[in-house]
Amino acid sequence: MDLEPLVARARERMGQPAFDYIVGGAEDERTLRDNEDAWHRLRLRPRVLRDVGSVDASTTLLDRATPTPIMVAPTAMHRLAHVDGEQGSAAAAAQVGAVFVAATMATQSLESVARVAPGARRWFQLYVHRDRGMTRDLVDRAADTGFEALVVTVDAPVPGIRRRDRANGFELPEDLELANVRASLNSDSGGAMDEYSDAALEPGLTFDDLAWLAALRDLPLFVKGVLRADDAAACIEAGASGVIVSNHGGRQVDGAVSTVDALREIAPRLDAGAELYVDGGVRSGTAVAAALALGARGVLVGRPVIWGLAAGGRDGAAAVLTELHEELERAMTLLGAPTVADLSPDLVAT
Amino acid sequence: MDLEPLVARARERMGQPAFDYIVGGAEDERTLRDNEDAWHRLRLRPRVLRDVGSVDASTTLLDRATPTPIMVAPTAMHRLAHVDGEQGSAAAAAQVGAVFVAATMATQSLESVARVAPGARRWFQLYVHRDRGMTRDLVDRAADTGFEALVVTVDAPVPGIRRRDRANGFELPEDLELANVRASLNSDSGGAMDEYSDAALEPGLTFDDLAWLAALRDLPLFVKGVLRADDAAACIEAGASGVIVSNHGGRQVDGAVSTVDALREIAPRLDAGAELYVDGGVRSGTAVAAALALGARGVLVGRPVIWGLAAGGRDGAAAVLTELHEELERAMTLLGAPTVADLSPDLVAT
Amino acid sequence: MDLEPLVARARERMGQPAFDYIVGGAEDERTLRDNEDAWHRLRLRPRVLRDVGSVDASTTLLDRATPTPIMVAPTAMHRLAHVDGEQGSAAAAAQVGAVFVAATMATQSLESVARVAPGARRWFQLYVHRDRGMTRDLVDRAADTGFEALVVTVDAPVPGIRRRDRANGFELPEDLELANVRASLNSDSGGAMDEYSDAALEPGLTFDDLAWLAALRDLPLFVKGVLRADDAAACIEAGASGVIVSNHGGRQVDGAVSTVDALREIAPRLDAGAELYVDGGVRSGTAVAAALALGARGVLVGRPVIWGLAAGGRDGAAAVLTELHEELERAMTLLGAPTVADLSPDLVAT
Amino acid sequence: MDLEPLVARARERMGQPAFDYIVGGAEDERTLRDNEDAWHRLRLRPRVLRDVGSVDASTTLLDRATPTPIMVAPTAMHRLAHVDGEQGSAAAAAQVGAVFVAATMATQSLESVARVAPGARRWFQLYVHRDRGMTRDLVDRAADTGFEALVVTVDAPVPGIRRRDRANGFELPEDLELANVRASLNSDSGGAMDEYSDAALEPGLTFDDLAWLAALRDLPLFVKGVLRADDAAACIEAGASGVIVSNHGGRQVDGAVSTVDALREIAPRLDAGAELYVDGGVRSGTAVAAALALGARGVLVGRPVIWGLAAGGRDGAAAVLTELHEELERAMTLLGAPTVADLSPDLVAT
Repeated sequence: MDLEPLVARARERMGQPAFDYIVGGAEDERTLRDNEDAWHRLRLRPRVLRDVGSVDASTTLLDRATPTPIMVAPTAMHRLAHVDGEQGSAAAAAQVGAVFVAATMATQSLESVARVAPGARRWFQLYVHRDRGMTRDLVDRAADTGFEALVVTVDAPVPGIRRRDRANGFELPEDLELANVRASLNSDSGGAMDEYSDAALEPGLTFDDLAWLAALRDLPLFVKGVLRADDAAACIEAGASGVIVSNHGGRQVDGAVSTVDALREIAPRLDAGAELYVDGGVRSGTAVAAALALGARGVLVGRPVIWGLAAGGRDGAAAVLTELHEELERAMTLLGAPTVADLSPDLVAT
Repeated sequence: MDLEPLVARARERMGQPAFDYIVGGAEDERTLRDNEDAWHRLRLRPRVLRDVGSVDASTTLLDRATPTPIMVAPTAMHRLAHVDGEQGSAAAAAQVGAVFVAATMATQSLESVARVAPGARRWFQLYVHRDRGMTRDLVDRAADTGFEALVVTVDAPVPGIRRRDRANGFELPEDLELANVRASLNSDSGGAMDEYSDAALEPGLTFDDLAWLAALRDLPLFVKGVLRADDAAACIEAGASGVIVSNHGGRQVDGAVSTVDALREIAPRLDAGAELYVDGGVRSGTAVAAALALGARGVLVGRPVIWGLAAGGRDGAAAVLTELHEELERAMTLLGAPTVADLSPDLVAT
Repeated sequence: MDLEPLVARARERMGQPAFDYIVGGAEDERTLRDNEDAWHRLRLRPRVLRDVGSVDASTTLLDRATPTPIMVAPTAMHRLAHVDGEQGSAAAAAQVGAVFVAATMATQSLESVARVAPGARRWFQLYVHRDRGMTRDLVDRAADTGFEALVVTVDAPVPGIRRRDRANGFELPEDLELANVRASLNSDSGGAMDEYSDAALEPGLTFDDLAWLAALRDLPLFVKGVLRADDAAACIEAGASGVIVSNHGGRQVDGAVSTVDALREIAPRLDAGAELYVDGGVRSGTAVAAALALGARGVLVGRPVIWGLAAGGRDGAAAVLTELHEELERAMTLLGAPTVADLSPDLVAT
Repeated sequence: MDLEPLVARARERMGQPAFDYIVGGAEDERTLRDNEDAWHRLRLRPRVLRDVGSVDASTTLLDRATPTPIMVAPTAMHRLAHVDGEQGSAAAAAQVGAVFVAATMATQSLESVARVAPGARRWFQLYVHRDRGMTRDLVDRAADTGFEALVVTVDAPVPGIRRRDRANGFELPEDLELANVRASLNSDSGGAMDEYSDAALEPGLTFDDLAWLAALRDLPLFVKGVLRADDAAACIEAGASGVIVSNHGGRQVDGAVSTVDALREIAPRLDAGAELYVDGGVRSGTAVAAALALGARGVLVGRPVIWGLAAGGRDGAAAVLTELHEELERAMTLLGAPTVADLSPDLVAT
């Protein structure tokens, strides 16, 4: 979709530092750009003369039917974009039936998100903290409020180098709080995200910890941040239900492979029973269709939802999700794929 | 050929919305650009010391000799470009001996086109409508007025996403009508092309319908919009006389393979008895020569004819076709290929 | 070498139409640009720790020792650039020991060129005319005035499409004449090069004519304009002493392979006994070294000599040739190749 | 790291001619650019869920533990950048534990460098002079002042073509001297570097000379300027302890392969016992990590240290080295490689 007008409005409303925090990537932002470019480099091979009189983009995620494979990616601090915050984006997701992945680093608590979209599908993105008790507490709260799966982020043992934020001296604005973890924020670390990350997050996480995490409340576990087939297999082996191919939106190692390229490596090598997801640079329904064709079951969208939220709050976020879903349906129609099962790898040129 | 001056004049005369409707493509217009770029990426391997004292670019289309393999592609609403409309472009085609493919979405009826170029070769591009009776009626009218083949467009079950037209709020101007189908246009759908398409065109078309279409009046059938070897084979299997490699001028799925790349996939795999055509991004006689070398029998040219029509009516369109044909002859001379039969794949680097 | 200052001066002195005639290529000038780019795309693999205390760039052309593999390519009408004309460039070539290839379309006669550089090595570029008597006459004059070989141009059965010249209405200026062929120029064809070409040159030349040409005066014959290994072999088979890989400086078929790519195809497949030359886009001694490494025996330089001539007459042309030769020696030193025999294919990355 | 601000300050402080001397490369500066681009073209495959709670970037160079694989490359005339000169950059290296490679063409003598960083690791870059006695003298001085290895530069038998320096008429400023070799500088060659090079340096060096050099004082010998696997093997065969993959910062043969590409050729083919280093275009800790993953043991950084020195003297140089080392540690953390031994080739996409 044409995000430029939304991005322009978001920049204006958020102010440059908050906008930069969302829009930026690590170092020279090569992976950030490559994520988008990689979808654009794909060449599609539409089929013709299939009956596409009725197209159905619904799918099954975690063995449960869901109206769209488009999901809201976990991103930090939605109130940077709009006062509606995570409640707004969660409600937007619920409105279109998209799975909402709530972030540990949210500006509204997972309880408040659950309240605003009680019947909707919600997963919880978990940063494992050095304090395992606190980690367990987060998992308990997620399970108790109806989050149906954990998404463990594993590509951020330390923050990436974000030059924009350094230049801007970006900190969490005073009127916002990291609502899920505020108890653990020292007053003197203030809004400095990196300091919080360094102090609180666990860089020593290994495959051996996955079983512990999964067992805490018996929630299905997804590992987010996987870029290699061997790592994906090891995650499944260690008890994960699936992996999310991600490079953290180009915010960690600059030069990391695009998620398209990682998806193309991982998909044909992953156990059939494991669920595969992808995020990074998805800006159109055509890209969603391509991701599914390449083997993804669901596609997480981050920044576009934030631009929609910034531009129009809950309704703005919903409009973005709706337009992407309509684009997906149109792409399926034009590709000759009336159902997601018809989105097969031959639709993408090798 | 150097189209820039023509395009500039066309833009000026047509006004931006109509110009945008013609010039534009889907979404980010990547396939639109790639269509042209793909011809430019080809590297040619001219032969020397062949006798090119006399070069003959005539060929045989549908078992009938024709003076040029260049054809006028079916494009909608020629009166957007010039009051001469389809009658002008058809007369221009007749003047140079090029096959004219009349469009369902024309602003002048196929009967009036037949009248202006009675002895000339004309094919009819058919959109299959949900109303099969209306479809049959179109085929009858085409057969009755001397159109010698049907070109069924299969890559547009729904319209692509054309941002330019959305931004311009583009509609069929009030003084124009879709002359072939006006009976079926509701007054309230007005000039909104997309609404007409959605309401009237059949998205449920399959290979099984091809035999029905071919049998209606026993006209040879070409399937336009094919981008894959398997689909091309299936079309022939289902009774088509040939296929036209096309991505609808980059107006449907953005990211679809360029027609050059599709041609290179399809040509070596197609039955020898089937006729293969191509359109998309052809802007020079050298590109026409390359297309023939890669296995096309005829090459359809769309936008350049419209620019010529816009700039100079019938004569302008004829000038474009003439210049392209002369360029083709010169390219054949310089490639060491005195006849179209000499345009073999080795002339293009792998 | 850094030609920009020379080119700027040449443009100023020659005026735009004459400058455009020299600098331009066919159609979109893709091959023109690709010729230069292709040398730049090559990646070199310098050797170290070879004794390069003394480097010798001399070589053997046509079994005769010559101080440099750099040659002056045949280009038309040197007096467009400077009043010194072909006499100036021939004298410049003689000064540095470079073989001078005089053009049929010269503005000074081959006899006058012979007079100014009597002892120097000179070859004659021949356009075979429809009038075979006239062709024989040109060969006789060349042989009688000490030209030691014929270079038959075979890639110009008709002129390419040169938009610059069309836009400029470029003609031979009134004070210049095509001195070698003036007898055959009708007064009414005037300075129009294309008309002369069409009227006088033989587009029906074939491999069978090569033996006849070679036998006329028993001069060694080179075929210029070859871009394919099969054609190169056929030339040798038909009696040529060698071939010159050339696409006429990008002035004939736009889209033709770069001469680097053609050289890489032809060199490993050509008979060891045949001599291989290349022109097109060579702008530095490093490119000359690369050409020799890839299998060329000599390298013809066209436009740079004209820029030198335009900027400073004979001395300007000599300065260009001298600088290129010095660059070649430096490149050989830095590549670890003290003699031309040491310039082997492994110096260029595959 | 983001060098732009440093480069801007350096340009301002040094003045254009000195700045150009440092920043520039040979001819069209293609290899100069390609060196940097090649690191950026690499695509990394980070691992997840390795315990990166503690990351250690220390390594072993020449069988001696060293806190960082980052080294200061030998570059000429540090006092062009700052009055602190080589003493400043050597002290900076010592401060962070980086090996300092002192250059023959230094503006401060190797003895003075030794004095300022007596306990630090220092290697000496040697230009072998035509005058072998003078060469021996340099080696003696290096050995006597605690330089622990010789780095023989072999890619500069003659200087490359540096257009910037020619245009600027760049010479060694009057207040600076080539402190290591001043005795051999004729007064009339003045500051002209190229004249000195041509007069004094030995272009006849071969593999056979390596044994002689190594034996002079029994110092380990590294050969700098190697770009091919066969040459690398021959160096080791001839007695070198290792090779430094380098194209002299793009200052010699324009078009030479990037050092990344050369490293990828050489590393898998080099004897396990030999040490492999690389320089050229390294501008980030991520690039250092990639170099180690591809088989380098140490990575030499040249221009960035000079920009740091220019901007802030010794402290400025130290700041650059510190930031690069911290970036390296962060890259290792994010790549899932807690030690340099974990930096294996699979971290880089093929």
